Amino acid sequence: MNNEFAQRRDLIGSGLATRELDAMLVTSAANVRYLTAFTGSNGAVLVLPGEALFFTDPRYALQSRREVSCRTQVCKGPILAAVGAIAARRRIRRLGFERAHLSYDAHHALSSAVPARTSLEPVAAWLEAHRMLKSETEIELIRRSVATNSEAFEQAARRVRPGMRESDLAAEIDYRMRRLGAEKPSFETIVAAGRRSALPHAHPTGAVFESGQLVLVDMGAFQDGYASDMTRMLSLGAPGARVRRVYRAVLEAQLAAIDAVRPGVTAAHVDRAARQVLKGYGLDRAFVHSTGHGLGLEIHELPRIGKKDKTRLAAGMAITIEPGVYLEGFGGIRIEDTVVVTRNGCEVLTATSKDLRVV
Amino acid sequence: MNNEFAQRRDLIGSGLATRELDAMLVTSAANVRYLTAFTGSNGAVLVLPGEALFFTDPRYALQSRREVSCRTQVCKGPILAAVGAIAARRRIRRLGFERAHLSYDAHHALSSAVPARTSLEPVAAWLEAHRMLKSETEIELIRRSVATNSEAFEQAARRVRPGMRESDLAAEIDYRMRRLGAEKPSFETIVAAGRRSALPHAHPTGAVFESGQLVLVDMGAFQDGYASDMTRMLSLGAPGARVRRVYRAVLEAQLAAIDAVRPGVTAAHVDRAARQVLKGYGLDRAFVHSTGHGLGLEIHELPRIGKKDKTRLAAGMAITIEPGVYLEGFGGIRIEDTVVVTRNGCEVLTATSKDLRVV
Repeated sequence: MNNEFAQRRDLIGSGLATRELDAMLVTSAANVRYLTAFTGSNGAVLVLPGEALFFTDPRYALQSRREVSCRTQVCKGPILAAVGAIAARRRIRRLGFERAHLSYDAHHALSSAVPARTSLEPVAAWLEAHRMLKSETEIELIRRSVATNSEAFEQAARRVRPGMRESDLAAEIDYRMRRLGAEKPSFETIVAAGRRSALPHAHPTGAVFESGQLVLVDMGAFQDGYASDMTRMLSLGAPGARVRRVYRAVLEAQLAAIDAVRPGVTAAHVDRAARQVLKGYGLDRAFVHSTGHGLGLEIHELPRIGKKDKTRLAAGMAITIEPGVYLEGFGGIRIEDTVVVTRNGCEVLTATSKDLRVV
Repeated sequence: MNNEFAQRRDLIGSGLATRELDAMLVTSAANVRYLTAFTGSNGAVLVLPGEALFFTDPRYALQSRREVSCRTQVCKGPILAAVGAIAARRRIRRLGFERAHLSYDAHHALSSAVPARTSLEPVAAWLEAHRMLKSETEIELIRRSVATNSEAFEQAARRVRPGMRESDLAAEIDYRMRRLGAEKPSFETIVAAGRRSALPHAHPTGAVFESGQLVLVDMGAFQDGYASDMTRMLSLGAPGARVRRVYRAVLEAQLAAIDAVRPGVTAAHVDRAARQVLKGYGLDRAFVHSTGHGLGLEIHELPRIGKKDKTRLAAGMAITIEPGVYLEGFGGIRIEDTVVVTRNGCEVLTATSKDLRVV
């Protein structure tokens, strides 16, 4: 894998010239990890043509020696001051920085740290564009994360019964995930029962499951740094006619979106496929979010599978497909898989059954 | 509690004039929660004199209605565009923004969204300065978070034995925490055995505990939004002479720092108290981080209890005291409590014994 990190740095280094940059400063944790394997919270990479320098603070001195294969500078003072000193020594004229990740403050500090002749150039989503296309190694890591996630769901779902609290099921899920090899959940596990499932991003509460309720479970793992993401619905007892109807609509929308995934189509095309099915059921206005998102080292990556995203899908992209319908006073139904775009279409990595699970 | 949120907004609103601002835009999740009780990820508050407006997106429409007591605008487009429209309608001339939290990109978007006559004014740590001083309600919430954390440690520590993996203990800790009422860990639980404990921020691995090893456990809960933080050491079998000596030094340093905590002293004074003890043992150079940090709605808040922090402590501040010594090839020893500054000194909230726990 070390070789893959060096290759990534080389790729950025060799792209500097076409962007008219002398160097690129990478500061977001996920992008730093992508380039160096560093898993700590405070690191930066300065990519120069044919060379990369890693910066961190003394807390990570030992850890970075184990993880990072490029030249490392352990800074006692602020990292950006050290970057500024290198900019001076190397006579960097045009220094790129991550415009979405550097704070106004850090930009200000960097401006003060570099020599007057160095101009700071805002760069948008350069690393993120590379990260959209996963390597075989990365897809394998996502596959394992998805498998862990599904197995944790199986183990936890068996324990669901009326009287259990949302927070108990969430704790159970996270525990199972960890025991199966995940570092942590890739986002706060969502367990929402009954009407609360109408909140697309509900936090689990002490609310107790009651017979007849629907329970929405949205969960993902980070395993070896890579995310998975899945949503399934549980029904405590036989579902009523309305639940079955809405469930069928969402499932049909999800399958239509998956069918639409193939190289060359836009993300918006996939989103539209889901939305059109829901429109046929008169439920499109209750679908209040995008159909999905990329995932990898972060739970939300490019592309966004939304109405307006014109990104053309390409083989190697890992994305979620997760249409949902939210009706106040009734609840929410969402079905979500993690899929990888292949040469001919896509592979659904999530193996968990999509039948409404009655417990 | 609703009243407390309104009070906080009023306090910021009434401070606008002295900062020569017509309005203040608050965008960081913790500060938004501090002002509104909103627990979602995408929200912003625009504070005007005597009034505050909350902005979010449609995913949080229902949730914000339940949580947020001030006027709310659910934006279909970008939140910052909606803020810009208000700036135009209200003829806001000087609009403050959070310089540490707004990204370069968001600052750029906000600049484009507001009318030409509106100037954006960078504001540093205004909300954070208020947040340093906890209310009685907040201290009570931190107290409960600390109690949950300690109880989870007790339950998990009982299970420690040779052959257990670092990641198993971390999973056990997080599970216990959740079952006891926490939403989640306040940071990734650190379990580091043997030499790995020399990495101050180690991720738990599959490494197996061996007899004779020291295990460092650094853990915290978020409960009802508020953080706790504690580090304890476990010894698998009777500790050797060197371990006992270093442990004694760290414990002495920790107690000295706690003794130094009282209103009116600087954060640096407390840091020095710990460092001087370690100097007496010839271990000060192995203490590679600060003595502690504030905590509350975030795990790291102001003040920083470090060498250079001149903040004067005041009653109501909640901070950690956590000196540590890290020796490559030997391991690390850290002892950490959560304490609250009181009128006469401080109260140590963490009740867990500080004896080196032999299992």
